[in-house]
Amino acid sequence: MKNIITIAVDAMGGDNSPQKIIDGIELHNKSSNNIFYKIFGNKNLIDPIIKKKSIDKNNFEIIHTDEKIKGEDSAFAGVKRGKNTSMWLAIESVKNNFSDIIISAGNTGALLVIAKMNLNMIDNIDKPALSGLWPSKKGMSVVLDLGANIDCNDKNLIDFSIMGSSLYKSLFPEKKAKVALLNIGSEEIKGNEVIKETYQKLNQIINEDFEFKGFIEGSHMMDGEVNVIVADGFTGNIALKTAEGTANFITNELKQSMKNSFFGKIGSLIAMKSLKNFKKKLDPRLYNGAILLGLNSPVIKSHGGTDYVGFANSLSVCEKIVKNNLIDKIKNSIN
Amino acid sequence: MKNIITIAVDAMGGDNSPQKIIDGIELHNKSSNNIFYKIFGNKNLIDPIIKKKSIDKNNFEIIHTDEKIKGEDSAFAGVKRGKNTSMWLAIESVKNNFSDIIISAGNTGALLVIAKMNLNMIDNIDKPALSGLWPSKKGMSVVLDLGANIDCNDKNLIDFSIMGSSLYKSLFPEKKAKVALLNIGSEEIKGNEVIKETYQKLNQIINEDFEFKGFIEGSHMMDGEVNVIVADGFTGNIALKTAEGTANFITNELKQSMKNSFFGKIGSLIAMKSLKNFKKKLDPRLYNGAILLGLNSPVIKSHGGTDYVGFANSLSVCEKIVKNNLIDKIKNSIN
Repeated sequence: MKNIITIAVDAMGGDNSPQKIIDGIELHNKSSNNIFYKIFGNKNLIDPIIKKKSIDKNNFEIIHTDEKIKGEDSAFAGVKRGKNTSMWLAIESVKNNFSDIIISAGNTGALLVIAKMNLNMIDNIDKPALSGLWPSKKGMSVVLDLGANIDCNDKNLIDFSIMGSSLYKSLFPEKKAKVALLNIGSEEIKGNEVIKETYQKLNQIINEDFEFKGFIEGSHMMDGEVNVIVADGFTGNIALKTAEGTANFITNELKQSMKNSFFGKIGSLIAMKSLKNFKKKLDPRLYNGAILLGLNSPVIKSHGGTDYVGFANSLSVCEKIVKNNLIDKIKNSIN
Repeated sequence: MKNIITIAVDAMGGDNSPQKIIDGIELHNKSSNNIFYKIFGNKNLIDPIIKKKSIDKNNFEIIHTDEKIKGEDSAFAGVKRGKNTSMWLAIESVKNNFSDIIISAGNTGALLVIAKMNLNMIDNIDKPALSGLWPSKKGMSVVLDLGANIDCNDKNLIDFSIMGSSLYKSLFPEKKAKVALLNIGSEEIKGNEVIKETYQKLNQIINEDFEFKGFIEGSHMMDGEVNVIVADGFTGNIALKTAEGTANFITNELKQSMKNSFFGKIGSLIAMKSLKNFKKKLDPRLYNGAILLGLNSPVIKSHGGTDYVGFANSLSVCEKIVKNNLIDKIKNSIN
């Protein structure tokens, strides 16, 4: 690790970019030291925004390009836009060791494909996995894979357990990683063949990197008894999206109920602070950003729809990952 | 259909039985006509409860047995308790055409196995599926399979679409069934091979029983744009449990936030009615009960942990299913 952490930032991806990207950098910069931002994108758009900011000129550099990948591109169409896009250039900066980590709020499919084209896999890992942060009663958990691999074998799920634990310990160095496999029951005999095989093997692995806690059902994911939850990409994505949908549905129903009556409105005004605390704890911006694990360099995907606060949170994730040597942790554990 | 609907009730399954079962029958009986309850269980326990009730003696019959299956039994251990258990006798009553439908709040695994042992499959359906009710912005949806079949092929998923639509139309005769396959994206190219194959086939089927709306992501399950959501049992169970876990987590966090401050408490007192409406709409008792589809008779599983109100709701589901000829609907659609 260098003393200065260099983050390659694709400034052109996601809604309201590059404005929110630069706003996010400013916010992150306020609470961080020794970070250098390599910003890839249209200088003509970025310059007028960044000039108004209080960011020290020694802390960033703009690498100009006219080209960018669009959100509505298919992964293939995105890749076809080529090596001069802001996303590709940012990834190349990591590939060439000019940056420690890359972040983009742009097209997820294109990001995964271009990253895999340019960056090597970590030895002994077969498939990269998309991991995310998940709220729980006791803090935050890591969940993976969120959709990079539809079909997984037991080796993949064991790799995910190792990578997820390494990520968890990079984000929360003071805590111990506790791994569980997402399943439809907690008994040993439940689930499909792959997950049962993985269970047996993880039960036999003796390691200091994580504690294996068996199976977990979706209903207990948020209890916080485990903090690294492993699934194939199909299952993980279904769980993630269903949780998002349920959370939105419930908070909307709550809002509607409160709005529909005079006393509801008054009550929510009086309880404003409590409601704000509630919203703050579950603010999706806190959990923003998926982390692609398995490549020789970490790749961070910020949600396209998040705002600058969410983007700044993802920059903090970048910082912790590099500072706490995520990639070395994975390499040490996998062997 | 006979003019009188006979429901075979296993009175001994689930928490706080037979008390809550009899309480549930009383509640259901108040708003229903022409229902006859065949109650299977320990007469010595049931009699003192039912004697205090206002249920007309002509509307029920108690079939005594000392034997019952326990909640903590494995499916196998449950089955081994044999033909004199209240659950088995209730199922046999449907098998022998003495009852139109069977309901139990007992051991799910044992219920599925004993039902499959005793009741024939509907012709041309290969696997039975567990379906449930799911809240949405526009009312209620049917989701299946919730865990009976871990591995499914395209034929199974098409059968589930047909059975789910028939169930939906039995419960909501005035509405049109709109089917979608639960997937990790809405584009045709997303998902595993089975689900893509099913998509192609469902797209080609022309029928009057349901409209096929393509894929749906977990995040949109509650939008209400579709009302029959189809998945293999592994995926469906993960979605169900994750939604339950998320709903519990959010409502608990909300409660905690409101409790933690003076103004939170006052605010929630004032907004009491709005909060009650909110809770009422999302009351899990409204969605209580899984329906096993595919056998020659419908089998209803009430949640073991629900109370008498939830059990009464499941009895209403039984009534609608028989009244609206669910089994005939499935048979007509499958051909």
